[in-house]
Amino acid sequence: MRTQEDLKACIQVALRQTPADLLLQGGRVFDLVTGELRRADVAICGERIAAVGLGLSGRRVVDVTGLTLVPGFVDAHCHIESTMTTPEEWEAAVLPLGTTSAVCDPHELANVAGVKAIDYFREAARRLHVRLEVHIPSCVPALPSESAGAVLDATAIAPYGGAAGLSEYMNIPGVCGCAPDTLAKLAAFSDRPIDGHAPGVGGETLDALVAAGIANDHETSTIEDAIEKLRRGMTLFVRNGTVARNVEALAPLFTAPFSGRLCLCTDDRSLVDIFNEGHINASIRQLIDKGCDPLYVYRAAALTPAQHFQWHDRGLIAPGYVADIALLKDLAQCDVAEVIVRGKMLADVQAARSTTLQAAVEPFRNGVCCRALTVDDFAPLQGETQAIHVVSEQLVTTALPLTEASMRECALAALITRHEMPTRIGKAWVHGFGLKRGALASTIGHDSHNLCVVGTNAKDMALAANALRDCGGGCVVVVDGVVVGLLPLPVGGLMSDRPVQEVYTQTKALATACAETGTVLRDPFLTLAFLPLAVIPEARLTLEGFCSVQF
Amino acid sequence: MRTQEDLKACIQVALRQTPADLLLQGGRVFDLVTGELRRADVAICGERIAAVGLGLSGRRVVDVTGLTLVPGFVDAHCHIESTMTTPEEWEAAVLPLGTTSAVCDPHELANVAGVKAIDYFREAARRLHVRLEVHIPSCVPALPSESAGAVLDATAIAPYGGAAGLSEYMNIPGVCGCAPDTLAKLAAFSDRPIDGHAPGVGGETLDALVAAGIANDHETSTIEDAIEKLRRGMTLFVRNGTVARNVEALAPLFTAPFSGRLCLCTDDRSLVDIFNEGHINASIRQLIDKGCDPLYVYRAAALTPAQHFQWHDRGLIAPGYVADIALLKDLAQCDVAEVIVRGKMLADVQAARSTTLQAAVEPFRNGVCCRALTVDDFAPLQGETQAIHVVSEQLVTTALPLTEASMRECALAALITRHEMPTRIGKAWVHGFGLKRGALASTIGHDSHNLCVVGTNAKDMALAANALRDCGGGCVVVVDGVVVGLLPLPVGGLMSDRPVQEVYTQTKALATACAETGTVLRDPFLTLAFLPLAVIPEARLTLEGFCSVQF
Repeated sequence: MRTQEDLKACIQVALRQTPADLLLQGGRVFDLVTGELRRADVAICGERIAAVGLGLSGRRVVDVTGLTLVPGFVDAHCHIESTMTTPEEWEAAVLPLGTTSAVCDPHELANVAGVKAIDYFREAARRLHVRLEVHIPSCVPALPSESAGAVLDATAIAPYGGAAGLSEYMNIPGVCGCAPDTLAKLAAFSDRPIDGHAPGVGGETLDALVAAGIANDHETSTIEDAIEKLRRGMTLFVRNGTVARNVEALAPLFTAPFSGRLCLCTDDRSLVDIFNEGHINASIRQLIDKGCDPLYVYRAAALTPAQHFQWHDRGLIAPGYVADIALLKDLAQCDVAEVIVRGKMLADVQAARSTTLQAAVEPFRNGVCCRALTVDDFAPLQGETQAIHVVSEQLVTTALPLTEASMRECALAALITRHEMPTRIGKAWVHGFGLKRGALASTIGHDSHNLCVVGTNAKDMALAANALRDCGGGCVVVVDGVVVGLLPLPVGGLMSDRPVQEVYTQTKALATACAETGTVLRDPFLTLAFLPLAVIPEARLTLEGFCSVQF
Repeated sequence: MRTQEDLKACIQVALRQTPADLLLQGGRVFDLVTGELRRADVAICGERIAAVGLGLSGRRVVDVTGLTLVPGFVDAHCHIESTMTTPEEWEAAVLPLGTTSAVCDPHELANVAGVKAIDYFREAARRLHVRLEVHIPSCVPALPSESAGAVLDATAIAPYGGAAGLSEYMNIPGVCGCAPDTLAKLAAFSDRPIDGHAPGVGGETLDALVAAGIANDHETSTIEDAIEKLRRGMTLFVRNGTVARNVEALAPLFTAPFSGRLCLCTDDRSLVDIFNEGHINASIRQLIDKGCDPLYVYRAAALTPAQHFQWHDRGLIAPGYVADIALLKDLAQCDVAEVIVRGKMLADVQAARSTTLQAAVEPFRNGVCCRALTVDDFAPLQGETQAIHVVSEQLVTTALPLTEASMRECALAALITRHEMPTRIGKAWVHGFGLKRGALASTIGHDSHNLCVVGTNAKDMALAANALRDCGGGCVVVVDGVVVGLLPLPVGGLMSDRPVQEVYTQTKALATACAETGTVLRDPFLTLAFLPLAVIPEARLTLEGFCSVQF
């Protein structure tokens, strides 16, 4: 609700009777309705745009000559945990890149800590300048067989219904089998957007998902798949994650007919990629570079997600809208020179910004609940016939028959429960890491985030696992009995509580340390983190050891 | 909220496991996302579409071979009172023409009866099959000087805020002057759509309206005006009323860039026009006839208004959406052969349909509260210098200097209070009706709906006025001391309580009777009804007599 004071201030500025709080003077506005690139000043009053035009004045005037103003970007679906930072630090990373809104799904922390995680994100969102809308994790645990830190059944999440959206409903068998818990969740959230997760799903199964109210999809990777979903009325979130990158393949969709049904998202994007390549602005740049019309690209970055999520006062630079604006040096490059969020300039937001609220993350510390590990826990497996074969930068794995030759290239992988006692351990051989020495361990292991270890010898593996047990979680590299790299993630074993720049530096140091193991993977911790995800084919590591996943 | 039973039924039909309640078989679906015209059956389960495709079955199968299926039409802004029927009878008129949703503003009855009128429409809407969303009248009375039946200030309407939209905010001086009552109304409704009313308004004044949260406009009549509004982020409702017809002038807007910002509406459309020309389907036909791309036209008729009003499950023929469908013989002609509303076929709806609930309209009877009129009340005016000059089918009037010649062509017009005692009367000369004999009287007189009379002699005028006083309101034609035509409108003096077909017959009979007066106007009662509307230039009839309206 707007206040009468806000309305009055905006009206008087619009009428040129009083100066705006902030006047962005001299720039060009990219009008996402008409497609015009117009010379216009933007007058901001409190959080809102009061007028876009000429003849305006401001108590504070900022010269933006030479810059192009576009509405701030929306990340339509993301897991902030993938940046390994808290919401406050995530904001510090993405806001300077023009992202002023996001829909996040605290799916990872919820797998560790249940509804406490949801409430933590909702509370943190209130402290941010970015509009962070928290959709409720729908599938915790991912599979009934998982050993997650929490079970979020319909009873647990229904109280959030009506006010919040439901995030990526991935339990397709639950929908198709009309499981009571599934129906109860879908019903409770039926008057808000229900996000989908349907990679390659088509035909009658897709019909069923859409009939059940699932409104969008961020797992689409081919044009054919996209058209199937668009025909069913779904909105597509074109993803630019660290592993899953669909922008290039879906660029041909950015045409007049589909404008209005396309959004952009990151899903899982690492801090390194955000720092090095960008955030939503990277997708924009890539799409325009592929020849897409900037009008349709920028709509997907702002106007369409605002409409899809029913934010009636976001997504345009127009009077009455919330003043979320990215100021670009170049429309095609999408290089962000300045950002306005809720009427405030980036520098002012940064000067006054919240850092991670330590009291709020306190409940998520001590996130590794397992006994001390020993060398015996990592004794080599005997009599196995298959290994998990991993490929750099791919989530899909294959089952590899074990021969004497392939065995020589394998490392041992172990999955160790960390959410409850007594400790259980599953082990399997894994092929493709290319480890020559040492061990890697991580408390990030989708989706339950148990403790994952991979290594060439039991001693280094035990040391790596215990190092994480001691520091409350994180990622560690051990070589020849020495911890050579450590990224502590004390917040649920998933997120750092340190400033984002420090996390970035630690992450790069960790990558350097990885090299000492001789691994051939681009991001071995990412590969490790997906080893336990038993919803992706075709070979996985579970608490029962090697697991074949077939559909 | 959807129920678990609804979800389950839709999922099982989508999976081809169970037959649908209703299967529309053999038709083509016009996909408003992709623009494809696709051969597909539509399976309906309860109120919703479960699947669109092939291989579906139904307990009831309707052969729709040769027909094209499009989403049911939305009238984005209308005053049902302009049809002179109750909501139930209005539905009976528009539903067979494919209109399955509307946003109505009970502005007219609210001017007579205040919040009682709002509650009546909201209650009636619950009995309809059409989705009728009642926006709250924002400006009752239209001017402080009006003698309406109610005053709806912010205190009266704020309780509807949050849940309902605010209808056509026409008090532009109130916005520009930041009147406290205006600000209180706009604030109370700021999180729902606020409809605008800004004919020809541009520049800083338009900036102020939009800054105040006004989101759309249905008064746009030129492309230039339209572009001004689109640039400010407004959605345009292209109007096809009985008097105000903007479809032809605005047809060039129906192009790719503006698709997604255009809706269709009727505002004030008479029952005669609805019966003879059509409703929203008439606008569609006219636009396509003007060369507009059917994709953009049908989007404006369904998808865009659903998005604008944030109805997330309307506006497409897709799984999970409410089954509101118009089945057409021809896409360009938009000739509606069958209608599905909330999953029900038109014939079933008609067989079971609600007729006017007499108990509900009871509080609006006896709507003419004035003393008996006498011949003396209609004594000719002396010493006037100007007359109101009216033009057929135009709302704008001009001030005509009275000369001996023009005086001979004038009739006397009178405005008589009907909402409170004691009775007050204003009179003026009016030119252009072309009356040769008799008198016309009506209890429809915008916006306060006092009793309007125009006539060639005092005797017939008094008889006409008293006839309406006796029957509780309506429209009457008197010639030489005889009532030759009468359309009783006992519901607030604005609406009939009779079946719509009977009202249509009465309306035509009334038009025939009008001819006996010799009038040259196409619709003299319409012209009469707008004589008192002192917000339109340039000469009007008020309780003070002739009134000059200048901006």
